[in-house]
Amino acid sequence: MSQAFADRLIEAVRSVRTPLCVGLDPFPERIPALFGDARTDLGAVERFCNEILELARTRAAVVKPQLGLFEAYGAEGYALAQALTAEAQAKGLLVILDAKRGDIGSTAEGYARATLGASPGFGADAVTVNPYLGRDALLPFIETAERAHKGVAVLVRTSNPGARDIQDLAADGAPVWEHVARLVAPETARLLGASGWSGLMAVAGATWPEEARRLRETLPQALFLIPGYGAQGASAADAVAGFVAGPAGREGGVVSASRAVLYPPGAERAQDLAAWRACIADAMDRANSELREVLQH
Amino acid sequence: MSQAFADRLIEAVRSVRTPLCVGLDPFPERIPALFGDARTDLGAVERFCNEILELARTRAAVVKPQLGLFEAYGAEGYALAQALTAEAQAKGLLVILDAKRGDIGSTAEGYARATLGASPGFGADAVTVNPYLGRDALLPFIETAERAHKGVAVLVRTSNPGARDIQDLAADGAPVWEHVARLVAPETARLLGASGWSGLMAVAGATWPEEARRLRETLPQALFLIPGYGAQGASAADAVAGFVAGPAGREGGVVSASRAVLYPPGAERAQDLAAWRACIADAMDRANSELREVLQH
Repeated sequence: MSQAFADRLIEAVRSVRTPLCVGLDPFPERIPALFGDARTDLGAVERFCNEILELARTRAAVVKPQLGLFEAYGAEGYALAQALTAEAQAKGLLVILDAKRGDIGSTAEGYARATLGASPGFGADAVTVNPYLGRDALLPFIETAERAHKGVAVLVRTSNPGARDIQDLAADGAPVWEHVARLVAPETARLLGASGWSGLMAVAGATWPEEARRLRETLPQALFLIPGYGAQGASAADAVAGFVAGPAGREGGVVSASRAVLYPPGAERAQDLAAWRACIADAMDRANSELREVLQH
Repeated sequence: MSQAFADRLIEAVRSVRTPLCVGLDPFPERIPALFGDARTDLGAVERFCNEILELARTRAAVVKPQLGLFEAYGAEGYALAQALTAEAQAKGLLVILDAKRGDIGSTAEGYARATLGASPGFGADAVTVNPYLGRDALLPFIETAERAHKGVAVLVRTSNPGARDIQDLAADGAPVWEHVARLVAPETARLLGASGWSGLMAVAGATWPEEARRLRETLPQALFLIPGYGAQGASAADAVAGFVAGPAGREGGVVSASRAVLYPPGAERAQDLAAWRACIADAMDRANSELREVLQH
């Protein structure tokens, strides 16, 4: 893999004509019974996720496995998340592993190897990391990504209500999240692709469009990873507030949807696999229509 | 398990007469060859860690597996960390899983179940969590701990140089880490034991004794988890700066040592297991002597 992650991601987004990132969030109690009982059977989770990957193959550029939901199944769940990462990549999808890791020194190197490194690691294309421990906690991930042409998505301003508790505290006239953005800004050059975009991504919740525009000023080259679209109440227009003009419409990151495309109304009650597939495909297609409209792809 | 985690921890500390917490940090390149080649053989890591647990059994109250170093070995490393957690508990040691997790909603619940929950979870006695995502990211861990009589150790002020990047930013006249402490303060009551100590722990680096004293004012009942003693350059006196008078000397948390007791000078060149064991036992005993002296146990 010699192409920068940022280039692979933006080319895939342009090719599929949508920034949609399908979140792989297996909520045991919401996976339809036709896959089995996901509360007790990891096989049901595997079948459900594999179907989602197949449906996402032509409808998204990238998927984002939510590692915590797999770890709830123990080491076997962890191994399943690894297998699904490989499966997604075999289908031509990029994988941003939503692990939200954050540690220092050798331990951070361990997590970087575990998530971005090849077997026995996940071999993911990018990983989400937490900045609370500071620059020396981010560097091992960035260095690993630089060597392997991978990406690192730093949590900057998340989409949950509690984000205001710490991230919005004002320090020297700027919120903490903006200090995080400034902290990573000098490192974006290290993961810069020929496209002009950097694989040092910033996670910025779709529920905060005003912040996304400010964040774009601080990090003009960072691709954004934008959660919170759909089920968390943000509109497509809000979600892409930090996007800028590109060769084929506005661009600048990926927009993650999970519940809205995994568990759309009616999917739970689908009588058979064909009906369920139609329901999921429709939800993904609708998300893409909305996103394309606001981006004029 | 009906006794509060805080009570189990403080009673174990009083019983062993030391706040020493042995970090289980398997650095592949520093594990002596007599265990095998830990860079390629997970069995070497297992043998090394099991020997450490046996030596710690009579010399510490608690151990702290550093999950990232196990995850570097993939799903098998993850499973080994689980097995070592059970092994440590079978030896009567408490286990604080150093996972530094942090996420929201169902994913946070997933991580809480994965770390504190029984099989297929780790069944750890406590877990370290990252506060950057705010209160709603901490609550699922606290609620799980409350139900299961477990502990949650919140990263407040870490011991690494980069801690100053975000944690020390001044907001409304107080550093960010103090805002984190205030955020968790109202929750300490939920994990309060009969001892008066709370299992809602605060991670406060040993390299910052002045901060530890301030933190004790904000969180009078929180047990501290103090990393950075020994190899990271902090003295025993620095490490226990946040401790207060107890029934048998000063108390108020546990002091974690990893490199100083796992890889002391000479251990790497030990010719046989007996010589290595003597070297490790000596390093642990020295740490305990230092800690007992400053605490007058």
